[in-house]
Formats: sequence, structure tokens, C-alpha cells
Amino acid sequence: MTKKNKKISAAILVIGNEILSGRTVDKNISFLASWLNNNLGIKVSEVRIVPDVESRIVKNVLSLSKNNNYVLTTGGIGPTHDDITSKSISKAFKKKYTYHKEAYAILKNYYGNKNFNDPRKKMAKMPSGSKLIYNPSSAAPGFMIKNVICLPGVPSILKSMINNLKKYLAPGLITHSSTISVETVESNIAKGLEEVQKKHKSFVDIGSYPFFRLGKIGVSIVIRSSNKIRLQSCHKSIIKILKRKKIKIFKGA
Amino acid sequence: MTKKNKKISAAILVIGNEILSGRTVDKNISFLASWLNNNLGIKVSEVRIVPDVESRIVKNVLSLSKNNNYVLTTGGIGPTHDDITSKSISKAFKKKYTYHKEAYAILKNYYGNKNFNDPRKKMAKMPSGSKLIYNPSSAAPGFMIKNVICLPGVPSILKSMINNLKKYLAPGLITHSSTISVETVESNIAKGLEEVQKKHKSFVDIGSYPFFRLGKIGVSIVIRSSNKIRLQSCHKSIIKILKRKKIKIFKGA
Repeated sequence: MTKKNKKISAAILVIGNEILSGRTVDKNISFLASWLNNNLGIKVSEVRIVPDVESRIVKNVLSLSKNNNYVLTTGGIGPTHDDITSKSISKAFKKKYTYHKEAYAILKNYYGNKNFNDPRKKMAKMPSGSKLIYNPSSAAPGFMIKNVICLPGVPSILKSMINNLKKYLAPGLITHSSTISVETVESNIAKGLEEVQKKHKSFVDIGSYPFFRLGKIGVSIVIRSSNKIRLQSCHKSIIKILKRKKIKIFKGA
Repeated sequence: MTKKNKKISAAILVIGNEILSGRTVDKNISFLASWLNNNLGIKVSEVRIVPDVESRIVKNVLSLSKNNNYVLTTGGIGPTHDDITSKSISKAFKKKYTYHKEAYAILKNYYGNKNFNDPRKKMAKMPSGSKLIYNPSSAAPGFMIKNVICLPGVPSILKSMINNLKKYLAPGLITHSSTISVETVESNIAKGLEEVQKKHKSFVDIGSYPFFRLGKIGVSIVIRSSNKIRLQSCHKSIIKILKRKKIKIFKGA
């Protein structure tokens, strides 16, 4: 990290017909977004979900790669015919789609000579020049080419690989957050929040999220900032407004 | 529906910093995708998640609106300062951002004259010429302008409104699906599936999704097609391969 206020952004590209059909509920977006945010200060600027169609993957990878420090893709690096992420990204970056020597050796060792069939070999094919992201659960590695990182779609496998990815990512400024949950409706506090937001301009980001829980209606006010002093001052201003309006604050929320 | 083989596509645009930060796990994408698919034969072609930033909403709405029959947005139509969907979409389509008479009357009636404050009034503001999508749970309506449909972000409220949206959507060809769950790993069936996929070309879409369940490793093979005969023939071909390879098929899967 060279500058104290370095902003690092990432985009997530989810590749898979099963997510677009609604059959599978994505579990990777919120995990990756939280992990990037909380551990590395990398802010997710955009997420896209696209089908298993080469032209769509190519187009989206190129555009997201251009506009972000990193792109993380999930899905499509397995052994079956609908796994076309590696090939599509090779095409996007005009790289040869070829066996990665180390990945080939890892998989050959994992499956044993006898069981190392063509579909399994396919998982060692990736854009030429890729760096590997080791997979401690099912061997088949992910990879990084340019600023694009390709991870599997199965959430448990993806999670097991995440620490092996850390070394490739330059950290940014961590965003801190503070949450105040109150027993009220949004429109009761909207004006106050808007005033506080205006006062703190772009240094602080105040979000307001209604919820229904245990028969009670409430709002979670989430304050986010990379500046702890701003965050605290903003938090205090909001508490002052809530007290003035006699709005009940949920304890331990 | 004028043509039997009419293909209708929709994009989903999720608007909200809370999803991009990982704080909130989206629950609307899979619900909307399934509902559109199963009830109306509308295929979701793409999903994007963007922050509460006007320029980003404008840009993405315009591009998705151009490339799809429908765009469904979620989030950002509430009373607080970070709810900027209606204003942004007015801007995108160069429409006046103004009170919708009927929406104003609905909200005024719901809250009563005394409690109808400015933040609540804001929920009646939308692009001029919008059609309303009634909200049976919390009154504030969604709206449709051109081919863009704006829904709230709170999943329970969104779900309660979905039937009021149906009349605005032209149905497409329903996609049928059939699932075969087997006790094996993907690489054992990859070759067979690829052959069947090639045989049925673009008429059928075969997906392969590994899972770990109750200590067992398995794969769900999902076949999707708008043509029931193709679907059945494809299903039979796959069963034949599985039997030949002596792969166990999970019952009732």
C-alpha cells in the first residue's frame, strides 16, 4: 500500500445458467464482498451474473477488468461441457488455452495415473501465463491472469481457497461500519439521516434498511466510512436525533 | 403471445450498497428468476448489482433496457435519502420526476393526513407516465416506465406485489426442466453429457452441478428445454449412459 487513502475496487462476475434460472441461490457474492471489504479494504463496485455463453463472458470480463482493480469470477472451471470460463477468458485476453504444468501435476497426483481422464485433465487447462490459486479441498486450482481471478462455483470449495488468494491482492483502505437498530419506520428518521449525510458529505455513507423481526418493525441504520473519527462523529449525531425524537434503540443491535 | 417460439428476456438490476458491501444477502434474484421462468416463460439473461449512485443506475438501466424485453429493478424506492431509484430512472428516460396522482392518494389514505410527511410523500414521486404496481403489504407502489419495472428491496414486500405485476408482462415460451441426481463425480459423466448435449444442440441445455449432501458426493444433472419431446429424449439418453456406466441414481431426486 503506497498511499494511505488508496481506493481499491473489485467486480464479481458470476458465471452460470443455474443462477439465472433461479434453480441455484448464489452464496458466493455476499461471502466474497464481505471478505474483500473486511479483510482487505477492497470495495466491490459491481456484480454481474451471466450465462454459460462464451461471447457474454468475454465481453463482460473485458469491460469489468478495464474498470476495476480486480475481477473475481465464480463458476465454470469444472470438468463438464458447460464449464467454459477458462477457455472464454483465454479468448478475452488473447492467451493460449493450454495445460498449466503445475496444475496438471497437482491433478495427476491427486487422481492417480489410472483415473486421470480427459475431463479431469481439462481442469488443468487455463490461459497461458496464469498464476495458480491452490485448492485444499478438491485439488483443481483456480487461477489469476492479468487482474482477473477465477474461482469455482461450489461455495465450500471457494471458501477453502480464499486464503490462498490473499497474496495476489493489494489491500486498500478498510471501511469501518457501525450499526444502530431502532424501533421505528424509515419515514420517521429519513429527514434526520439526510441532514447528517449532507453534513458528512462523501466521507461517510449512511444506509437505512427496514426489517421485520419477532413481530417488531425496525430500521437498521448503517454508517460506513474509512475514517474512524468521521464515523464516530456521524454516529453521535444520529444518536442525538434519535433521542430527541424519543425513538427506541435496540440494545446490542 | 403471437408466435409459438417467442423468446422473452428480462434483466434484473439490484440497486443497493448493502448488497455490494456483503452486509445483506440478496434474496430477490433467485425468487424473481424462478417466478419469471416458471410462470411466464421469461428467461433472465443477465443480473447486475450496482451501488446507490445515480450515474451508475442511469447507465445500467439504459443498457439493460435496450438489450432486453424487460428490466426489473429491486431496491431504492423507499423514503430515505439513499433511495434514488425513481429519480435516477426519471433521468435515464428524460421523464419528469413528479408526484403520481394515484400513488399520492393511496399513500395519503394509508398514512392519514396527519402522518403524511415529506419522506412518505417522496414514495409517490416517480417518472411521469409510470404505471403503478400495487403493494398490498405496505402501500407504497412500485411502477413501470417503458420496459422497466421498479420493485422494492425488502423481499417480503416484493413477494406480496408480484401478482400485481403479471398483467404488464407478455409471456414467452415456458422452459421445462428435468433433474437427475446421481452418486458420482462430474468427471465420470462429463464425456457422456457432452455427447448428448452435442446431439441435441441448442434445443436443450444440460447443466451439471456437483453437491455434497449427507456425507455423499453427487451431481445434479439438469436438463432444460422449451420442447418437451426433446427434453424427454435427452433425459432418456442420459439415463442410458448412467445405466451403462453403473452409476447410482438417487431416487426421488
